[in-house]
Amino acid sequence: MHPNDGFRELDRHDCLRLMAKVPVGRIVYTRQALPAVLPVNFSLDHDGAVLLRTSATSELIRAIDGAVVAFETDDVDADRHSGWSVVVTGTATVVTDPAEHERLARTGTVSWVPAPQEVFVRIEPELVTGRELVGGHSLYGVDLTA
Amino acid sequence: MHPNDGFRELDRHDCLRLMAKVPVGRIVYTRQALPAVLPVNFSLDHDGAVLLRTSATSELIRAIDGAVVAFETDDVDADRHSGWSVVVTGTATVVTDPAEHERLARTGTVSWVPAPQEVFVRIEPELVTGRELVGGHSLYGVDLTA
Repeated sequence: MHPNDGFRELDRHDCLRLMAKVPVGRIVYTRQALPAVLPVNFSLDHDGAVLLRTSATSELIRAIDGAVVAFETDDVDADRHSGWSVVVTGTATVVTDPAEHERLARTGTVSWVPAPQEVFVRIEPELVTGRELVGGHSLYGVDLTA
Repeated sequence: MHPNDGFRELDRHDCLRLMAKVPVGRIVYTRQALPAVLPVNFSLDHDGAVLLRTSATSELIRAIDGAVVAFETDDVDADRHSGWSVVVTGTATVVTDPAEHERLARTGTVSWVPAPQEVFVRIEPELVTGRELVGGHSLYGVDLTA
């Protein structure tokens, strides 16, 4: 990255503030040794962890429990060539502690429609990076996120 | 996936038709053994290959040239709980043939602002999968894309 390429690096506080504005992000993981990506809705825990709610028997759970994943959110205005992108990278873990599950069920992510055997997944905010794009610059090959 | 979960699988034609409507997607790859994701603008070649244009010296090029990557696009209306997502998975290759570079420079992706030493990257459409979400269903853990 170059210092004057039209991007402004975002600090952790700004990253989490922006992420909280969008309801859907994309979880990036490995599936059968290939890169995989899945849009999901989410919420943020008080410590910046990404919270998903999904079926305990889903293919996603089998692929990500215990693995390091990336979770991407963005909001880009193509007409104005402006926007932002934030990526949280960290270990994804199914919440198995009953008290923690209860807390999240009370305060955390609300499903649009409940799925069977729902569990929460936490993605630890081990690395939180983000960039804001100032209008008029190309996105090509320019890493909005790190 | 269950047959009546509110999703409709999209065929290759519909996937490419929808992708052509959005200017920005997200390239998913591996960076230093970690999952990485980067929003970029793109266009589609006549055969459905994803075309990016970036600096030959970018970190992205070093990470993806010759590697299998995923390229995700989506358009989700969170209020109406509807939308679609398409993923192209295939090998990314820097276009080195001068005639092919010339063709793409003439007909392909146009940079918002040119970068130094620009090259084209083709992502072969080896696997094209997509789903359309019918309103009212949860996105949690539901694979919109495969």
